[in-house]
Amino acid sequence: MQLLDGKLIATQIKREIATEVTKNMIDKSIRAPHLAAVLVGDDPASHSYIAGKERACREVGFLSSVYRYPVTISESKLLEVVDFLNKDPEIDGYIIQLPLPKHLNSQKVIERINPQKDIDGFHPVNVGKMVLNLPAFLPATPLGIVTLLDRYNIETEGKHCVVLGRSNIVGTPLSILLSRKTKRGNSTVTLCHSFTQNIAKIAREADILVVAMGKPESVTADMVKKDAVVIDVGIHRLPSFESKTGFILKGDLKFDEVSKKCSYVTPVPGGVGPMTIASLLINTLKAAAKEVK
Amino acid sequence: MQLLDGKLIATQIKREIATEVTKNMIDKSIRAPHLAAVLVGDDPASHSYIAGKERACREVGFLSSVYRYPVTISESKLLEVVDFLNKDPEIDGYIIQLPLPKHLNSQKVIERINPQKDIDGFHPVNVGKMVLNLPAFLPATPLGIVTLLDRYNIETEGKHCVVLGRSNIVGTPLSILLSRKTKRGNSTVTLCHSFTQNIAKIAREADILVVAMGKPESVTADMVKKDAVVIDVGIHRLPSFESKTGFILKGDLKFDEVSKKCSYVTPVPGGVGPMTIASLLINTLKAAAKEVK
Repeated sequence: MQLLDGKLIATQIKREIATEVTKNMIDKSIRAPHLAAVLVGDDPASHSYIAGKERACREVGFLSSVYRYPVTISESKLLEVVDFLNKDPEIDGYIIQLPLPKHLNSQKVIERINPQKDIDGFHPVNVGKMVLNLPAFLPATPLGIVTLLDRYNIETEGKHCVVLGRSNIVGTPLSILLSRKTKRGNSTVTLCHSFTQNIAKIAREADILVVAMGKPESVTADMVKKDAVVIDVGIHRLPSFESKTGFILKGDLKFDEVSKKCSYVTPVPGGVGPMTIASLLINTLKAAAKEVK
Repeated sequence: MQLLDGKLIATQIKREIATEVTKNMIDKSIRAPHLAAVLVGDDPASHSYIAGKERACREVGFLSSVYRYPVTISESKLLEVVDFLNKDPEIDGYIIQLPLPKHLNSQKVIERINPQKDIDGFHPVNVGKMVLNLPAFLPATPLGIVTLLDRYNIETEGKHCVVLGRSNIVGTPLSILLSRKTKRGNSTVTLCHSFTQNIAKIAREADILVVAMGKPESVTADMVKKDAVVIDVGIHRLPSFESKTGFILKGDLKFDEVSKKCSYVTPVPGGVGPMTIASLLINTLKAAAKEVK
C-alpha cells in the first residue's frame, strides 16, 4: 500500500504556483493574483478555514483580502458586497464562506457571483459547464482529488469508480468529472447515497473508491476490493484519551484495516484536505489569467 | 412483459395540457403558450422534427412559430435572432434546431439563449441547476423517460439504474436526474460509455437499464437481468425488404429477445420518441407560467 500524500503534492503545487507568480507576474511588474473571501458571523470552523486560505495565499505570493461582516448583515447588504466584488478589477476571484446564517439565502447569493470570479465553482453556470466539458471553474475538492490521482499517475480511463455520497460540493461533481471524456476522466462511475442498497457489494466492485459520506470510520475492509485505490474525503474530530489535545482526526475509513487491503489510500489528515486548498489556488490563477469566460 | 407505451402516455399528457390551455388561458382570455423554433438550412431530418413540434403545438392549442434561415446565415445574424427572441414577450420559449451548419458555433448560440426561455434545457445554467436540484428546464428526452417511468408507477428509489451512453442531451443528464433526491430519483446510477469495460456485466446488474448508445440492435438478452425495466432511446432507419417503404425503424435493443426477459420495455417507434415531444410541451407550459427564473 502506498499513501496518496496530499500534503506533499499540495506543497509541490504551491511551489509551482509561487514560481509562476514570481516569474510571470512579479518579475514583469504584473499584479499577483488576488483572492478575496467573504466571511459572515463568527463560526470558529469558518474562521479557521479562512485563516488557512490566507496562509496558502501568502505561501504562493497571492494577494488576499477577507471581507468580514457581522452575523446580522442583511441579504441586500450582502448582495451589494457581491456586486462590489464582481466589479472590482483588483480582485480576480472570491469565495463566500459557507454556511451563511439562516436568514440569508445562500443560493441567491451564490447565483449573484460573477461566474468568471467564482473560484469555488458553485455557480450553476460553472456546474453546467463542467457537465458539458466546457472551460469552467471546477469545485475545489473534486478538482483536488482528480489532481491527486493525476500526480500519482493513477489511470482512470476504463476503470470503475464508485463514489459514496452525492453532496453538491463533493460526491455529485466528482462523479461527473470522473466520467467526462478527459485525460483523467473516462471512468465508469457509480454514484451511491443514502438510498443505495447493497452499498458494500457495489463498493467492492470499485477500482477507485471515493468515500464522502461524512460518517466516521464507516467503510471497512470488507467493502473494498483488493488493490483498489481508496480516497477518503471525510474528516471528523473525535474525542480521544490517547491524544494530548483530547481529540483525534479520523476519516470515513477504518484506516487500519482498509489500508492493508488497497493499493493506494489517502491519509486523514494530510490527504484530500490540503488538495482542496491547492485547488482553490489553481482556480485563482485561472481567474487571474481570464481562462474561464 | 409490459410495453411502456410512450405514444399513449404522450397522448394523455397532450390531452391534459390542452385542457389546461383551454380552461386556464383561452377561457380567461390569456394568450396560449407560444413555442418558437429556429431552423437553419435544409437538413431533411431537422425539417421533419420541426414539423412534428408544430403539429404537437397545434394539438394542445399552443401558438408556434418557425424562424427559417438559409444555411449561409452568419453567426452574428443568428445571434441577433436569438437576442430578438429573448426580448419578445410574445414568445415564451424557443429551441434552436441542432445540428447547426459547421461555420456556426452552436455552443456560443446556445449560451446566448435566455435561460428562462431555454425549453430544450441546453443552456449551462439549466444543466447546472438540474445538478443542484433547483428549478430548471430539464432536457426533453431525460424528462420524457422519467415521466414515462412515473406514469407507469415504476419505483426508482433505491433501484440500480445503468445508463449506457454519456451524450450531453440524453445519457449524462439522465444519469444525473435519476440520482437526484427527488420523487423519481434516488436511484443508484452507473453511467457507462465507450471506455467502459465489462459493459454486459454492468448492464446485467441494472434494475432499470437505459440504452442510449446509438448502435442499432446492440443490446442483447444476455446483457439484461430478468425482470429489468428497459428503456430504448435509439432510433435507426434500417433498410428492409419486408417493409413497403423499403426501411424499418429499430432501436438499440434486440427487441425480440430482450422483451421476453424484461418486465417493462419501450417499443421503437412509439416509446421514448413521443415522450420527448411531450416534454418540450411541458417545458413550454412551464416557461409560459414563468416557473423557471
